Amino acid sequence: MTKKAKFSAGVLAEVHPAGTGLVSEHLQAVLEVSRALMREHNLADLLRLIAEGTSQVMAAERSSIYLVDPDRNELYTFVAQELEIQEIRMPIGTGLSGHVAQTGETLNIADAYQDPRFDKGWDLRTGFRTRTVLCTPLLAQTGEIIGVLQVLNKKDGRFTGYDKHLLSAFASQAAIAVENAQLYGANRKQFESFIETLAATIDAKSPFTAGHSKRVAIYASRLARAVGLSPELVEKARFAGLLHDIGKISIPDAVLNKPARLSDEEFALMKSHAHWTHEILRKISFARSLRDIPAVAASHHERLDGRGYPTGATLSQLPLLARILAIADVYDALTSIDRPYRKAATPKEGLEILRREKGASLDPQLVDLFARQRLYSLPRN
Amino acid sequence: MTKKAKFSAGVLAEVHPAGTGLVSEHLQAVLEVSRALMREHNLADLLRLIAEGTSQVMAAERSSIYLVDPDRNELYTFVAQELEIQEIRMPIGTGLSGHVAQTGETLNIADAYQDPRFDKGWDLRTGFRTRTVLCTPLLAQTGEIIGVLQVLNKKDGRFTGYDKHLLSAFASQAAIAVENAQLYGANRKQFESFIETLAATIDAKSPFTAGHSKRVAIYASRLARAVGLSPELVEKARFAGLLHDIGKISIPDAVLNKPARLSDEEFALMKSHAHWTHEILRKISFARSLRDIPAVAASHHERLDGRGYPTGATLSQLPLLARILAIADVYDALTSIDRPYRKAATPKEGLEILRREKGASLDPQLVDLFARQRLYSLPRN
Repeated sequence: MTKKAKFSAGVLAEVHPAGTGLVSEHLQAVLEVSRALMREHNLADLLRLIAEGTSQVMAAERSSIYLVDPDRNELYTFVAQELEIQEIRMPIGTGLSGHVAQTGETLNIADAYQDPRFDKGWDLRTGFRTRTVLCTPLLAQTGEIIGVLQVLNKKDGRFTGYDKHLLSAFASQAAIAVENAQLYGANRKQFESFIETLAATIDAKSPFTAGHSKRVAIYASRLARAVGLSPELVEKARFAGLLHDIGKISIPDAVLNKPARLSDEEFALMKSHAHWTHEILRKISFARSLRDIPAVAASHHERLDGRGYPTGATLSQLPLLARILAIADVYDALTSIDRPYRKAATPKEGLEILRREKGASLDPQLVDLFARQRLYSLPRN
Repeated sequence: MTKKAKFSAGVLAEVHPAGTGLVSEHLQAVLEVSRALMREHNLADLLRLIAEGTSQVMAAERSSIYLVDPDRNELYTFVAQELEIQEIRMPIGTGLSGHVAQTGETLNIADAYQDPRFDKGWDLRTGFRTRTVLCTPLLAQTGEIIGVLQVLNKKDGRFTGYDKHLLSAFASQAAIAVENAQLYGANRKQFESFIETLAATIDAKSPFTAGHSKRVAIYASRLARAVGLSPELVEKARFAGLLHDIGKISIPDAVLNKPARLSDEEFALMKSHAHWTHEILRKISFARSLRDIPAVAASHHERLDGRGYPTGATLSQLPLLARILAIADVYDALTSIDRPYRKAATPKEGLEILRREKGASLDPQLVDLFARQRLYSLPRN
C-alpha cells in the first residue's frame, strides 16, 4: 500500500549560472503555474495554459505543446497562442518537435534556420520569425513519450543549460496535468456515452419513439443555453433529456407498443414511467453538480397549473430545468411520433399547440424563446 | 476561454533565514513530491503520501492530514503513519487541527503541552510525545477550507517562519491533489452506481431474475481475484458481470417472463440477448482499461466445446474473463432462479452440475477453484 515519495534536490541549483536566488524564484514560478495546470481538466484549455505558462516561466516569445496520437503516429495540438484555436497535426518524425517526439532527446537550437530538421512552414504562414528553440519531451509516468513542449525565441540571448533543466522541471508537471486531463476526459466520455447508449436503447424498444430522448436532449440543452444558463446547467439539461424516459424500462412492452389508444388502466400504467424514472435515477450517486437530475428528469409531465404527474407540482414548485424539459418533450412527442391513430404534427402545427399551452401546462416565456429563436429546427440526417 | 496563469515569485526566498541555496532545494523537493501526489487518484493512498511527503520536506517526525466532512461538521482521515489504516473522526473545533479547520489560521506551537487547545488523547493512546506543532489549512480553489495539514516535532529545534511558508506551499499542492482525487472518486462512483442501478433495473424486469446480475458480478470478481488477476481486471470482471444481461432490454417481456417453457422460436429470441448485450455495450466509449467489456460480457453463454452462443467460440478463443463469467452466470442461474417448471438447485446440486460441465461448457480449473475456495457462499441478507 505504502508508496514512498522519493526526491533528490538541487539539480537546478547546480547548473544555474547566476546564483541560487533566481533559481528559487523560477522554481516558485514553476510551482505556481503547475497549480493552475493541475486544476484545469479540459484538455484544450490545459494546453493553452501550458503554452502560456511556459513562455512566462522561460521568458520567451512563444511556446507550443504537441501531444502524441499513437494510433495515427502523429503529433497534434489545439493551441496556437495569439491565433484562433485549431487542431494542427503532423507526422511524428518531421520538424524539430517531431524529432523530439521520436527520440525523446531535448533539443537546444541556437539558430533554427541553420538546422535542416526545422520546418519553416509555420513561420511562412504566420509571419513569425523563429530564432532560438528549446524543445523537450513530455513523459508519462510509464516513461512513454506523450508529447513535446517547445519554447521559441528567448527574450534575452539563447537558451542555456539551466533553461533546459527548468523546462524539464516544468514539462514533468505539465505531463502529469495532461495525463490527468486525458483520464478525466476519458471517464467523462465513458459516462456520457453510457447514458446516450442507454437512452437510444430505451427509445428503440418502441417503434414510435426512436431517437426521442436524443432529440429532447437537444431541444432542452438549446433552451437552457438560450436562457443564459451556465455550461454545467446546459449539460444537466442534456442529461435530463437523455434520461427522462428511463422509467419506460419498467413499463410492459404490450402497453408501451400498443398500436392503438390505451385503455384507462393502460394509460395509468404508462403514466407511471415518470415515477419509475425518479425511482431508478435516485439510486445513482450523481456527482454534486448533477444531484437534482432525478427530480428534473422525472418532472417532464408536470404542468404549470398543477394538473400534471407524477406529483402535480405547480409553477412555483417547478424548477426552470423541469419547465425546459417539459417543452422539449411535448414538442418532440407532437412532431416526431407517428401513432397509428394520429400522424405527427408539422413543426408549424407543433408550435401552434405549444402556444395554446402557454400558462396552462407550459412556461409562456420559454415557449416564446423556443419559437422565436427557432430552437426546434433540427439538422437533417 | 483564455485563463491567464498568474504567479509571483520569491516569497520563500524573502523569509528564509539561511540563504537561498536551501530554498531551491526545498522548493525542488516540494515540486518532486507534488508530482507523486498529482498521480495518486485513490484518496486513502493519497493522504498517506501527503503525510509522508510532509514529514520528508519539513524534516519532522510525523505528519497528519485531516479532511473536512461538511455534512457532519467533522474532520476525518484514513492515515496513521507507522500504524494500520483506520478512519479517525473528530468534531471541527476541538484540538489544534480542529481549531485550524474552523479558523483557517496557521498555528506554530513551540510546546504542545502548554497549549490548552492541544488534545493529548492521541499521545496517550500511541505513546508518541508531541513537542512542536505546525498546522495549516488546505484550501480549495474556491477558498473553502477542505482540510488541515499538521506536522509534528521538527527534528532540529522548532518550526520557523520559513517552515510556515514552506508548509503552505506544500499544502497548496496537496489541496489540489485532494480535490482531484475527490473528483475522480465521485466520477467513478457515479459511473459504478449507474451500472449497478441499471443492472438491478434489468434484473427487476423479470420476477425470476431479481438480483441475478449483482450476484454474477460477485462470483465473477471473486473468481478473478482467486486466479490472481490485478485489481483492474477484478473490477472488469465485476462490471462484465453487472452488464452481461443488459441485452435483455431488447427482449420482449412476453418471452422474458413467460411462466412456462419457451417454444423453439421464443428460445431463439431469448438467446439473442447475448448478441444484444454486445450491440449495446460496443456503442459505449469505455476507457482503455475496460475496452473489451462488450466482448467479455456478451460471451457468457459461450462454451469450451464451441457449442455456445452467440459466436460458437471455442476454448482457444475464449478469454479468461469470459470463462470466469460463464461459471458465475451458470452457477447463479442454477441456484437462484426458481422457474415455474423447475425449482432452484441447492448449492451442493449446483456445484455437482458445474463439475459435470467441466471441459464441455466450463473451464475445469476455474470450476475446481470456485468449489475449493467456496467462492459460491453468499452473505445472508
